[in-house]
Formats: sequence, C-alpha cells, structure tokens
Amino acid sequence: MKGTPPVKRALFEEDHEQFRELATEFNTREVSGKYAQWEKDHQIPREVWQSAGENGLLGLAVPEEFGGMGIDDYRFRVVLDEEFVRAGHLAVALAFHLHDDLVLPYLLAYGSDELKAKWLPRMVDGSTITSCAFTEPGAGSDLRAVRTKAVRDGEDWLLSGQKTFIGNGAFGDAAVVLARTDAESGRATESSFSLFMVERSEGYTNGNPFDKMGLRASDTAELFFDEVRVSDADRIGEVGQGLRYVKEQLPQARLAIAVAAAAIGTASFDQALEHAKNRSTFGQALTQYQNTRFELANLKTESHVTQTFVDQAVLAFNNGELDAHEAAEVKLWASESAKELSDKALQIHGGYGYIMEYPIAQSFTAARLLTIFGGTSEIMRETIGRAL
Amino acid sequence: MKGTPPVKRALFEEDHEQFRELATEFNTREVSGKYAQWEKDHQIPREVWQSAGENGLLGLAVPEEFGGMGIDDYRFRVVLDEEFVRAGHLAVALAFHLHDDLVLPYLLAYGSDELKAKWLPRMVDGSTITSCAFTEPGAGSDLRAVRTKAVRDGEDWLLSGQKTFIGNGAFGDAAVVLARTDAESGRATESSFSLFMVERSEGYTNGNPFDKMGLRASDTAELFFDEVRVSDADRIGEVGQGLRYVKEQLPQARLAIAVAAAAIGTASFDQALEHAKNRSTFGQALTQYQNTRFELANLKTESHVTQTFVDQAVLAFNNGELDAHEAAEVKLWASESAKELSDKALQIHGGYGYIMEYPIAQSFTAARLLTIFGGTSEIMRETIGRAL
Amino acid sequence: MKGTPPVKRALFEEDHEQFRELATEFNTREVSGKYAQWEKDHQIPREVWQSAGENGLLGLAVPEEFGGMGIDDYRFRVVLDEEFVRAGHLAVALAFHLHDDLVLPYLLAYGSDELKAKWLPRMVDGSTITSCAFTEPGAGSDLRAVRTKAVRDGEDWLLSGQKTFIGNGAFGDAAVVLARTDAESGRATESSFSLFMVERSEGYTNGNPFDKMGLRASDTAELFFDEVRVSDADRIGEVGQGLRYVKEQLPQARLAIAVAAAAIGTASFDQALEHAKNRSTFGQALTQYQNTRFELANLKTESHVTQTFVDQAVLAFNNGELDAHEAAEVKLWASESAKELSDKALQIHGGYGYIMEYPIAQSFTAARLLTIFGGTSEIMRETIGRAL
Amino acid sequence: MKGTPPVKRALFEEDHEQFRELATEFNTREVSGKYAQWEKDHQIPREVWQSAGENGLLGLAVPEEFGGMGIDDYRFRVVLDEEFVRAGHLAVALAFHLHDDLVLPYLLAYGSDELKAKWLPRMVDGSTITSCAFTEPGAGSDLRAVRTKAVRDGEDWLLSGQKTFIGNGAFGDAAVVLARTDAESGRATESSFSLFMVERSEGYTNGNPFDKMGLRASDTAELFFDEVRVSDADRIGEVGQGLRYVKEQLPQARLAIAVAAAAIGTASFDQALEHAKNRSTFGQALTQYQNTRFELANLKTESHVTQTFVDQAVLAFNNGELDAHEAAEVKLWASESAKELSDKALQIHGGYGYIMEYPIAQSFTAARLLTIFGGTSEIMRETIGRAL
Ligand SMILES: Cc1cc2nc3c(=O)[nH]c(=O)nc-3n(C[C@H](O)[C@H](O)[C@H](O)COP(=O)(O)OP(=O)(O)OC[C@H]3O[C@@H](n4cnc5c(N)ncnc54)[C@H](O)[C@@H]3O)c2cc1C
Ligand SMILES: Cc1cc2nc3c(=O)[nH]c(=O)nc-3n(C[C@H](O)[C@H](O)[C@H](O)COP(=O)(O)OP(=O)(O)OC[C@H]3O[C@@H](n4cnc5c(N)ncnc54)[C@H](O)[C@@H]3O)c2cc1C
Ligand SMILES: Cc1cc2nc3c(=O)[nH]c(=O)nc-3n(C[C@H](O)[C@H](O)[C@H](O)COP(=O)(O)OP(=O)(O)OC[C@H]3O[C@@H](n4cnc5c(N)ncnc54)[C@H](O)[C@@H]3O)c2cc1C
Ligand SMILES: Cc1cc2nc3c(=O)[nH]c(=O)nc-3n(C[C@H](O)[C@H](O)[C@H](O)COP(=O)(O)OP(=O)(O)OC[C@H]3O[C@@H](n4cnc5c(N)ncnc54)[C@H](O)[C@@H]3O)c2cc1C
Repeated sequence: MKGTPPVKRALFEEDHEQFRELATEFNTREVSGKYAQWEKDHQIPREVWQSAGENGLLGLAVPEEFGGMGIDDYRFRVVLDEEFVRAGHLAVALAFHLHDDLVLPYLLAYGSDELKAKWLPRMVDGSTITSCAFTEPGAGSDLRAVRTKAVRDGEDWLLSGQKTFIGNGAFGDAAVVLARTDAESGRATESSFSLFMVERSEGYTNGNPFDKMGLRASDTAELFFDEVRVSDADRIGEVGQGLRYVKEQLPQARLAIAVAAAAIGTASFDQALEHAKNRSTFGQALTQYQNTRFELANLKTESHVTQTFVDQAVLAFNNGELDAHEAAEVKLWASESAKELSDKALQIHGGYGYIMEYPIAQSFTAARLLTIFGGTSEIMRETIGRAL
Repeated sequence: MKGTPPVKRALFEEDHEQFRELATEFNTREVSGKYAQWEKDHQIPREVWQSAGENGLLGLAVPEEFGGMGIDDYRFRVVLDEEFVRAGHLAVALAFHLHDDLVLPYLLAYGSDELKAKWLPRMVDGSTITSCAFTEPGAGSDLRAVRTKAVRDGEDWLLSGQKTFIGNGAFGDAAVVLARTDAESGRATESSFSLFMVERSEGYTNGNPFDKMGLRASDTAELFFDEVRVSDADRIGEVGQGLRYVKEQLPQARLAIAVAAAAIGTASFDQALEHAKNRSTFGQALTQYQNTRFELANLKTESHVTQTFVDQAVLAFNNGELDAHEAAEVKLWASESAKELSDKALQIHGGYGYIMEYPIAQSFTAARLLTIFGGTSEIMRETIGRAL
Repeated sequence: MKGTPPVKRALFEEDHEQFRELATEFNTREVSGKYAQWEKDHQIPREVWQSAGENGLLGLAVPEEFGGMGIDDYRFRVVLDEEFVRAGHLAVALAFHLHDDLVLPYLLAYGSDELKAKWLPRMVDGSTITSCAFTEPGAGSDLRAVRTKAVRDGEDWLLSGQKTFIGNGAFGDAAVVLARTDAESGRATESSFSLFMVERSEGYTNGNPFDKMGLRASDTAELFFDEVRVSDADRIGEVGQGLRYVKEQLPQARLAIAVAAAAIGTASFDQALEHAKNRSTFGQALTQYQNTRFELANLKTESHVTQTFVDQAVLAFNNGELDAHEAAEVKLWASESAKELSDKALQIHGGYGYIMEYPIAQSFTAARLLTIFGGTSEIMRETIGRAL
Repeated sequence: MKGTPPVKRALFEEDHEQFRELATEFNTREVSGKYAQWEKDHQIPREVWQSAGENGLLGLAVPEEFGGMGIDDYRFRVVLDEEFVRAGHLAVALAFHLHDDLVLPYLLAYGSDELKAKWLPRMVDGSTITSCAFTEPGAGSDLRAVRTKAVRDGEDWLLSGQKTFIGNGAFGDAAVVLARTDAESGRATESSFSLFMVERSEGYTNGNPFDKMGLRASDTAELFFDEVRVSDADRIGEVGQGLRYVKEQLPQARLAIAVAAAAIGTASFDQALEHAKNRSTFGQALTQYQNTRFELANLKTESHVTQTFVDQAVLAFNNGELDAHEAAEVKLWASESAKELSDKALQIHGGYGYIMEYPIAQSFTAARLLTIFGGTSEIMRETIGRAL
C-alpha cells in the first residue's frame, strides 16, 4: 500500500523537476522584466513564442514524427503552468494553454496526417501561434447558437462570421474555428457543426485587443471572417462532428484550467506568506497578528486541499479515466478556490495588492477569469447537476 | 504510474468491503429502530457494546496477544465510521471513536504489558466501556490549565479533581485521565502531567448526561474524582510525560474526526439527493429546480474534494507520515466542510430537516460539534499558523 | 431633518420600554428555571398561557370591544419577541407568534363579528391556545397542493385531512385550517381554498409532538381531521378566498419571523461577547485574542445592519407600507443572518455552545428553523426574483 | 410616527434630486465617451475639474464667504457619488472624494481664515486639484510610523520625506501632508505630527502613476519631498495635533467610502439585472434561469440592506451623531458588501464582465480597493473590536 501524503505532494518525479528548471530559466530569461511592457502592448512578442519552441515548451504532446516530443504525461504541462503562475506571468500561461490544451488536442485526435504534417511542426517550433475560436457574440455558454458558417465551394469552404473573446486572436496566425456546416437548414442540431483549422488570409481580420481586467499581456480579440477560403484539407475530422469533438475534449480543457487555478491558489498563499513575513505594522510583522496567521492557515489548508484534488485528477487524466463530469467538478472547485484564495491573499498585501506590478494583483485578476472562461461555474454546476 | 481518480474512490480493497458488510449488518440488527430510544436515554446500552465486541468492531488495533486482531490499517476504522454515519447512528460512531481512537492509542503506545493485559481484552470484548477524560471546566483548549491532580500515596496515587464534557462519562467503566503529578509546585510546565487509566471505584462519580444539541445517544457528562485510589500499575507511560503523549497522539485523534466529518459530508449529499429526487413541489421533483440542482452539484463536488483530501491523509497515516500539523489541516478542513455541507443538505429537506428522526438532522447536529471537539477550528488555525 | 443613528436604535418610545419591563418580569417569574422541563415535556403549560393573558401579552391587536387592548403598533410585539429571545425562551416566542401573528390576523381581517366575539376574548385571556394549520405532508412550500377538504353538510362543514408540522398542534385548542372547499372539482385553482377556525372536537386528533432539533418546548405535531364538524359560523371570510387571505397576510407573517431573527442575531452577539469577556484560555480572556475580537466585531456589525433593516421594515409595516415582496427580502435576510450569527457566536462558546442549557445553543437551533419555516429562503428568493 | 420603508429609499428630498440632474448631465457631457482614454492616460484632464467647479460640484461644504455654497447636508455628496458610480466613472468619484472628503474637512475644521482664504476658492472652482498625503512606504495602517518630517526653518518649514499611494498625486497641485514635527526626538508619540497644506514647488516631485487594477483614470503616485519650503501660514491647525485631527475626521472619511460602496453595490445589481434581462442563452433570457433569478434576488436584497444601513449613517452624520466606531462599522460592512455584490454581478455578465469597458468591470475593480483604502477591513475590525 502506497500513500500520497495529503500535504506533501507526490505528483512529480525526477523528469518533471528537470523540466521545471527549464521552465524557471525560461521565465527568468525571457519574461521577467519584460512582462510589464507586454501588458501595455497587449501582446507577447513573437520571439518569445519562438524561444519557447526552441526550448521545447510548446506542443508537448506532438508526436516525434511531427517534430514534437510525444509527451503524453500531462504532468509536464502542469509544471509549465505552475512556473508561469509562480512568476506572475499568467498571460503567458494562458497563451500557451490555448495553443497546447485547446487547439492541439483537436489536431491530434481528429486531424488527418496531412493536416498534422502541415500544422504540428509549426506549432511546436512556435512559428505559428494558434487560437481556439468558438465563442461568438451570441454564443458563449451555448455553442449551439454559433452562427459562423462554412459553405462548400468546390474543393474549399468559405467561412463567414464573427467570433469574440478569442485569445491570441489579434496576433495569432491561425485558429481552430467551430462553424455551422448546414447553415441552409433551419435550427441547428447536434450534427450541424464542424471544426476547421483556419489560417490568417484574405477576409480574416480582427478587432483591437480588448482592454481586459487582467491577463493583459494576452491579446483577446474579436475575429471577423468574410468569406475566408479554407481548404478542405484543413477540416478537422468529419463534417458534422464538431460539437461531439468539443465534448470529447472537455476533460483536458477543464483540467487545464483547474491546474492553473490550483497553481494560482498556491502561489497566492506563497505570496501572502512572503509579504506577511516581511511587512511590519505597529512594530510587528504581520505574521504576529492572529488574524493574519489564521488567514494564512486557511489559505495554506485550502490550497493543499485544492491541489490534492487537482493532482488526483491529473493522474486520472493520465490514465484516461477523467470524464467530462468529473472534470467539471475539478474545474468548478479549483477556479472558485483560486478566486477566493487570491482575494484573501491580496487583502493581506494591503495597498500593494492593488498595484499590477505585484504578482498577487496578477493572480487575483487572472483568477477572476477562471470561473467564466472555458465554461462558467454555472455551466459546470448544470453539467454536474444534470448527471445526478 | 498509478492514479486514483479524483471522484471514484480508490481507498478500499476487498477486505475493507467485507468488513463494511459486517458493519452494515451490525447497524441494521443492533441499532436501527432502537436508536431513537437511546437518544431519549442518553445511553447506548451495554449489550450493544458487547455485541460490537463479539463482532470484532472494538479495539481493532489491539494485538492478537491481547485478544484483538492487530489491525494496523486505519481503513477499517474508516469503514466502521462511515457505516455508522451513513445509517445516522452518529452517537455510536462517537462512542466507539472515544474508545478506539482516544483511549486505546495511549494504552498501546505507552502502556506496560501488565497494563495492556489488564485492559485491552476488556476493551476488545466490549465489557469495559472507556472514556478519555482531559477537559475540565477551566481547561479545554488549554490543557496546561488542567487541575485534576494525582498525588502519590504509597504504591498508589490519589486522584482528585473534576472533568467535564466527558464522552461515555456517565455510563463508562474507566477513563484515561490527564492529571497533574506535580501539584505541589506552582505553575504547571510541560512535564507536570501524567496519564492514568482510572476505573470506576470509590470517589469516582459523575453528573447527569448533558442535554446536548445532537449526538444525544452518546452520554457526555462531568466526572468527579474525590481521592480516587489508582494503582501505580494503572499509570500510562512515564510520570510527567502526559502532555507529550497527548501531542504524539494528535494525528490519530484529528484524523479520526476528519474521517467522520468526511463521512458526514458524503452522507449529507446522499440524503439530500435522495430527498430531492423523491420530493415534489409545484408539480415537479426538487431536482427539476435549477437552484436545487446547483446546490446538489456543489455538495457533490465539495464532498468529493473533502473525501479526496481525507483519504490521502488516511494513506499517509497508515504510512506513518501524517504529522500533527498536517492532521490539523485535515481536521480543520473536514470539520468545517461537514458543517457547511450538512447545513446545505438540511435546507433541501425543508421542514423535515428539522426533525431529529431524519438522518440529516442527526448529521447536522453532529457536524456542529466537530469544529469544537478534539481541538477547535481556532486551535487548528493557531497550530497551522504557528508553523508557517 | 431627523436621523436615526445606524447603530443606536431609535425604534422605541417610552411606552414600549414600559411594556418591555412587563415582558422581562414575565420571563423571570413564569419561565426561567422551568423552561428546561418544558423542553423535556415538549409543552408550555397551560397556566403560562393564562398568566400571559392576564399580563396582557396575548392578542395584542385585539380591539377593546373583544377584550383586547387594540394595539396596532407592531413595536409592542417586537418588544415581546426580543425579551423571549434574550432570555433564551425561544419556544415561548414561537408559540405566541403562532397565536398572535399567524392566527389572529385572519380573524381580525376577515372574521365576522360573531366569529370575533366567539374567539378573540379567549385568545386574549390565554384560555384558548391556537394553531395555524396550513402545511400538509404533501404541501409545504406549495399550498395549492393542500388536500384537506371541507365539504358542506347542511349548515356545517365536514373537515377531513391531515396537517403536519403544526405548532401548538398537540396541546392547542383550535386551529385556523386551510382546506379545499371544491374538492369535487379536479385540479385546485386560486379559489379552491377557504379558511376555518376549527375547535378540538370529535375526529380532531393529533400525533405526538415531533422530536425537533430546537425549540423543543414548543409542541409541533401532526393533526388529523376525520369528518370534523365545523359550524359555518367558524368559516373565516368568504368561501374560496383562502389563498388570497394567506397572501394578504404574508407581510406580517414574514416580518414577525424577521423580527425574531434579528433578536436572535443580537442576542447571539451579546451572549458571545459576555462569554468571551468571562472565559480565559492560556491565561487570557478570549477578548484578548485578535481572532475572537474580529469575530465579535463582525457579529456586532452584522447584527446592527440586520437590526437596522428590520426596524425600518417594522416602521413601514406600521405605516401600512410593507408589501409581500419587501417582507420577503426582510425575512430572507434576517433569517439567514440569524443562522450565521448564531453559528459564529456558538463557536466562541467552545464546548458550552453545544449544551442546550446555554442560551446560545437555543438560539442556534432556533435560528436553523427560520430559513425554512414560514416560507423557505428559496421561496423568498423565488418571490423576489419573480418580481424583478 | 414616521417610517422609512426598508426598500423604498426616503433619504432624498426635492433639492437633492435637482442636484442629481446636474450631476447626471455633467457625467453625460463631460465624462461619457472620454473616460476610456483617461484610463489609458491615468489622468482626469484639468478642464474636467474646472468644469466641475463651474457646475458647483466641488468643495460643496465650503462656506459662501470662501466662494462655496456652504452645503453642510452630506446628502449632496451622496448624490454626486451615486451618479459617478452609476455611470461607471468611478475614478472621478474617487478623485473628487479625495478633494472634498479628505482634504477639505481639515481646512474647514482647523484652518486659519488666512489659509481658508488662500485655498478654498481655488478648490471650489477646480483650479487647484488636491491630494491627501498620509501613507508612506513604511506607514499605511499605522500612521504613527510616518517619517516624513517638517523642520522649522525661520518662518517656514522644510518638508522632507516620501509618500506613496497618493491619489491625485501625479497631476495634483497641492497636498495635505501628515508630517512629524518632532523628528529630533526618538519614538513618535500621539503629538509628534502636524498637518500642512503643501503646494507643488521646488523639491516636490512625484513618481509615475501606478498601474492599478482598477480606477485607472485616477492617478495614484508616490510623492517625494526634498526640503520643500512650506510657509507656516500653510500649517493646518496646531503643531502636534495632526493625529488628533486625523482621528476627528475619521467619520467623514469612512462614511464617504461607505457611500461609494453602497452605490457600487446598487449599481452592480442594476447592471446585472439589465444584462440578465437582455442576454439569452439556450433560447431563453438569463432571468428565466432560477439560479440567475436567485442570485439577482440576493443582490437586490443585500443592496437594499446595505443601502439602508448607509443611509441611516448619512442621517446620523448630518446630525453630528456618527462617531468613529460607528463609522468603522459602516465602512467595514459597505465595502465588504460592495466587493461581494460586484463579484456576483460580474459573474452574471459572463465574459463581458471581464472587459473594462463594461461598467461592472469598473465596479468590481473599484470595489476591490474599498476594503483596503481609507483603513483596511482588518483595521476596522480592530477598531470595533477594541471598543467592545
Ligand atoms: C478573457 C477571455 C478570454 C477568452 N478566450 C476565449 C477563447 O480563446 N476562445 C473562445 O472560444 N472563447 C473564449 N472566451 C469566451 C468564454 O469561454 C465565454 O465568455 C464563456 O464561455 C461564457 O460565455 P459568455 O461570455 O457568452 O456568457 P453567457 O453564456 O452569456 O453567460 C452569462 C451568464 O449566464 C450564465 N448562464 C448561461 N447559461 C446558463 C444556464 N443555462 N443556467 C444558468 N446560468 C447560465 C453564465 O454562467 C454567466 O454567468 C474568453 C472569454 C474571456 C473573457
Ligand atoms: C459533546 C462534547 C463531547 C466532548 N467529549 C470530550 C471527551 O470525551 N473528552 C474530553 O476530554 N473532552 C471532551 N470534550 C471537550 C472538547 O474537547 C472541548 O470543548 C474543546 O477542546 C474546547 O474547549 P472549551 O470548550 O473549553 O473551549 P475554550 O477552550 O474555552 O474555547 C472557547 C472559544 O475560544 C476559542 N479559543 C480558545 N483559545 C484560543 C486562542 N488561543 N486563540 C483564539 N481562539 C481561542 C476557541 O476556539 C473557542 O471558540 C467534549 C466537548 C463536547 C461539547
Ligand atoms: C418546527 C416547524 C414548525 C412549523 N410550524 C408550522 C405551523 O405552525 N403551521 C404550518 O402550517 N406549517 C408549519 N411548518 C411548516 C413549514 O412552514 C414548512 O416546513 C415550510 O413551508 C417548507 O415546506 P416543506 O417542509 O414541505 O418543504 P418543501 O416545500 O418540500 O421544500 C423542500 C426544499 O425544496 C425547496 N423548494 C421548494 N420549492 C422550490 C422551488 N420552486 N424552487 C426551488 N426550491 C424549492 C425548499 O426551499 C426546500 O429547501 C413548520 C415547520 C417546522 C419544521
Ligand atoms: C489605489 C490606492 C489609493 C490610495 N490613496 C491614498 C491617498 O490618496 N492618500 C493616502 O494617504 N493613502 C492612500 N492609499 C493608501 C491606503 O490608505 C493604504 O494602502 C491602507 O491604509 C493600507 O495600508 P498599507 O497598504 O500600508 O497596508 P498595511 O498597513 O501594510 O497592511 C497590510 C495588511 O495587514 C493588515 N494589518 C495591518 N495591521 C494589522 C493589525 N494590527 N492587525 C491585523 N491586520 C493588520 C492590513 O489589514 C492589511 O491586510 C491608497 C491606496 C491605494 C491602493
């Protein structure tokens, strides 16, 4: 009988810790000191993606034949996320998450070899930055309301419509687009939608990056498709299976957010503890105040609890045993927990918590997205509740 | 790499499930239908203890040489607790918890062979019901304020003082008593206290069972010691080491409460779901209401989260790796969680939740004790906070 | 411009304070020291009702011509409630609440002079103890599901059916009963129900008092009507207007619970403060601990907030300006607040909070009813939400 | 007997509503459509201050002899705050708050006629923008740790030190500065500090505006004083009375934040309701979902509760009856409530809540400051707790 202590993590092995060093170095070398400027620009520079590619931080799951390392152990992604979060470089975590957790799985699972050969190497080396373009002004929680349409035109498709809130949308090169492929019939059904890998080309434009509350270095923008020509070879999987594919990939999409959320919770605690130890008021360190100590004890405990739950989910996912409902529980819990933990940790920072250069302000504003993005907490509860 | 799915439990093996059947049968045969009367009497009848003894439900950890089965896998205690909780027989869980988790570990860890030979067989067969008598009117969170004293008198000790809130206190036969053994010196120090196994005898009296909010079938009472003669052979471990022993046994004491708490959380969810499925208002089942569904989704998720954390702690404890600080986190989290979950589950029961014959009313009132008993949540936070 | 300070209450005038003294004396003389026994008996003795009648504490709003004092200033009822709560005699508050806030308003508003002449004097002098019998096993939140029926039989009605959770049900003398008066037609409509004042007589029986979590001195029981003969003169208002009457009286029903809830919140704070000042651990009073101080500060603040809101509602009600939706907000807020405040205040009591002889245990268990009884919090939210 | 209904506000009279129109027009004309740019600039343009001055929106309490309107009814300030908040122009509310609630009261209460004559007209007409400069890197909650010092130099004082988090700091013209006037003696005492009105002049510099989470149009910056020469005529009140003055003005400082907080709570509810009514998912408006309706019901209720409490405090303040402890309760409650309400209202907005152009994103990020700024919630609890 082998036990994982509840508070000492036993998730990682030697390899992961080595990869962690790589990630830490990348953060220090490529991001620290530059991130504040990226926030103003609402952009992570293209060179950074390329450098990430060179360092093997992109497209982890891409098989060797397509230029990747074929890592199917999700713990490496966990390590990466944790390091970006720890460093307060949350928008980088988000940008890479979209690329690796949202776009990549569709290509890997349903893409033809041709499609893979075309896209995967470019995603691995960071030369192509990708988006996942599902949401529309009239279709967020409810993807069946998607109205972007792809209409057959000879060997190609003509794609028209509008997407919104698309991460890597303003500066990305290509997007997985969910579009209706039976626009001529009336109300959409389960099999009305298909997925396409769409490259920036004529008719593919974008709005300015939104002015977001947090994660400002990540560009989130509207996309407009005006009869964009898409080769049928860039169709992902079968026609009419788009919604099914989206559902099948929910476990990873949700787990990935939970992983980031747990990392935010843990980082929040760490930052609050650090601040409390070093900050004095009325002649004593904040840790001398019982209330601060109790708050820190709560933070520590809840961050352990959440981490334990998420870590178990990571192992289950690795074993192919995490279904969408379970992933909904993990996403719901971890994102709500990150929101709460970062809020309490921020309070311990006093006024400093309100200034964006402090990592806790980054954590707090990032956490606020997590209960919305990738399926709101309400949608998670509905999902869990329906399966009761 | 072996993963435990986050929501499907992987704690138990074949043996535990067999033991569970035994426990279920015991509940059905010996408790169900009688429990309400025990609540009025504030007493679990002696025969029930004996029957439990016969069925191998008491003194699990007692080595074979002292009449037990030498089970050092804590998961069997978990099974037992869960079954009492599931059936709504929480006071039995509490009574046996005191016997097996609070009294027994002291005898096993520090008792002489003579002491073990005298007490353990009687604890295993249920003929002797034991209490753990630490708390006093002036000493709850702060055991250093204990004033009950044991004074040397030849080969024996004379024990005098008052204890309060002692479970199995009114109908028990013997108690582990924490007493000062250097009463003559002034302020108590770390080494002022010792533990004794004290049998009901002259000078050992008790008050009436308290009228408690819940767990009414368990008798909780004051104990009065008026020069009770205790043989030195009934001293547990060394003189002056009482407080140290208490600290050393904190992991099990805390974990045990967390285990019961997690079981209460899970049972609360189960009961709420059951009720919601079967109860209709305005022509539809409660599960048809989105709010009810969302509440149930929250309950389900949080009960999984808490169970996962506690299960990991059980495995750690089995491996000898759960220290007192970690156990404090587990106790804090699980007891607060039980309080919240049982409260929300009760609400779903409407008026029925307020009637003690419903298991949820039992769960709710039991849960309210768990953040107080065995170290309050504040003491847990202080413990965790001091170690930051 | 005249302002009511937010934290110093300005609700009461001279008269009310005089009435308060009367109420305090009544509590001291008639209830204290006896209440614990009533809890065991699940009964407030009949003499107590009569003494209350003699002291002018019952039927406050009954006009002088029917033996009352015609007090239409609700603040006198507030005073009475507050005094019972403060003393920890919550079941008396509940019993009188049913009599004065739930039964009386129907008689006053819709009763014929004959009906008033028959019932009001007996309610004022305490010789008749009344119940409000609406809820049924299959009809709680949803009164349209009531199946108790009254069938015309000459000049009389024959009443048959079952009610449950009826306060003063086991030892009361008469009940306002909501019954269907068009049982012969199929599905009930808004005008299917009527109200009757039903006296204990042949065919009118009751179950044993329920074993409740709290408020044990108040008897809550099932009522069974087996062709109980009710004179048409005991019909309250018009046939078919029962549901309308119930709706019209919602403001008072809800406000009354909010008043008790606010009193419980305030009393909880007072009791916690008192306990914290007098209890020491580790050599200092609990008020020396920052966490305890912060908790007390929260309790104090929230109890002021809630009291302010409820007091404003009382004034609005006095002015005839509190509608059912507003009353729903007041009931929702105050009852949830009482639940939370009494829970936190209990925690400050440590183990003592779990023992029913402590007022805080009474407050806590009483508060748990308030979010259920008289319309659950969910029904309040639905009411408010529908009116958005 | 005159009652204020709990949910229909009765705070305002005719005059206030007229003033409200003025405020609304000002918002529409001078702020709307320009605010997003000010956020980028971290600056409210000087013309806006002047226009506000012309419209009588600045220096409300300034007596007529000094160019003002001598409004001592605080409800006019309430109106103004509410209008800025409703429009989502929260940084303007903050900027004017600093000017009118934090700087002005010191001048009015303790300033010599000469001082008043010099400063008040310029504050009323908006030609001088003022700051309140108390906080330092080492002195936030604990003002006794202030190290900025003013040293006598002939008729003048030489001011040296560093302030931080100073609102209107980068673009303001003058600041009330709290400085030690007995720097030569060792540890500071209650009478070590004095207040000065310090104009921008040689040695008075500032840092760049901080990149704040919210309220970005308001510039918050560090101030550096390097032997800034301050005429003794610009001393406010007596030497050594600085801390006493600060304490005396706490009621207004705290109340003002509570007023803004209540307005944020109310606006959050309004915005969420508006959004929920107009947004559809899965073919129905969000208000059709029970969970959304319940959340809105909670928001509505709590916003009423908080507003009622704050309104009572405003009346008490107008009557000179709001002391610093009571104001602490009001500030604590209202700011925590704003945080919670804006968070829940944001969630109802889905992804839109995360985009700064939506008023709810402005409310949420502004609310996060309110439990920190002007005395943290912890300091409020300490204040209340100490006075128990
Ligand atoms: C910064 C940011 C980045 C994003 N990145 C991407 C991206 O890269 N790609 C992409 O495709 N999308 C992206 N999104 C979109 C995101 O996934 C959606 O915002 C999210 O799914 C919610 O959709 P919505 O905003 O339309 O909210 P809505 O669906 O309009 O929901 C509004 C509110 O109603 C609630 N609600 C909806 N339906 C129900 C129901 N049935 N019952 C109860 N409550 C309900 C929701 O929980 C929410 O509280 C991003 C969003 C943001 C803000
Ligand atoms: C039903 C029941 C059964 C029990 N069974 C047993 C038993 O079998 N054997 C036994 O020995 N004991 C038993 N107890 C006692 C129980 O363990 C104690 O009640 C508990 O440890 C708390 O002690 P106290 O009641 O004296 O509270 P106190 O120590 O007086 O604490 C009062 C409050 O102050 C808080 N507090 C105390 N110190 C601090 C601090 N330093 N900082 C901040 N807050 C503080 C506490 O958290 C609590 O909220 C039982 C109690 C109950 C109610
Ligand atoms: C101690 C006690 C004393 C009482 N005294 C009296 C009395 O004197 N006279 C009397 O007539 N009654 C009395 N009652 C009954 C009380 O008013 C009801 O219990 C209460 O109205 C709730 O009804 P229910 O118990 O049938 O719950 P249900 O109506 O079955 O509700 C169960 C749960 O479902 C929720 N729910 C129901 N409908 C909805 C919906 N549409 N949307 C979302 N959630 C929903 C409820 O909020 C609750 O959480 C008493 C009850 C108790 C416990
Ligand atoms: C955007 C912004 C605008 C501001 N504008 C101004 C302005 O115009 N003028 C000005 O003078 N100031 C201004 N401030 C400063 C503000 O008032 C302070 O930030 C605030 O008083 C808290 O001080 P601090 O940041 O130093 O936190 P600290 O005092 O360091 O507190 C850190 C944490 O410790 C807690 N803590 C501190 N002491 C105790 C204790 N005894 N017990 C328990 N917990 C404790 C606090 O509650 C907080 O959670 C502004 C701040 C911000 C962020």
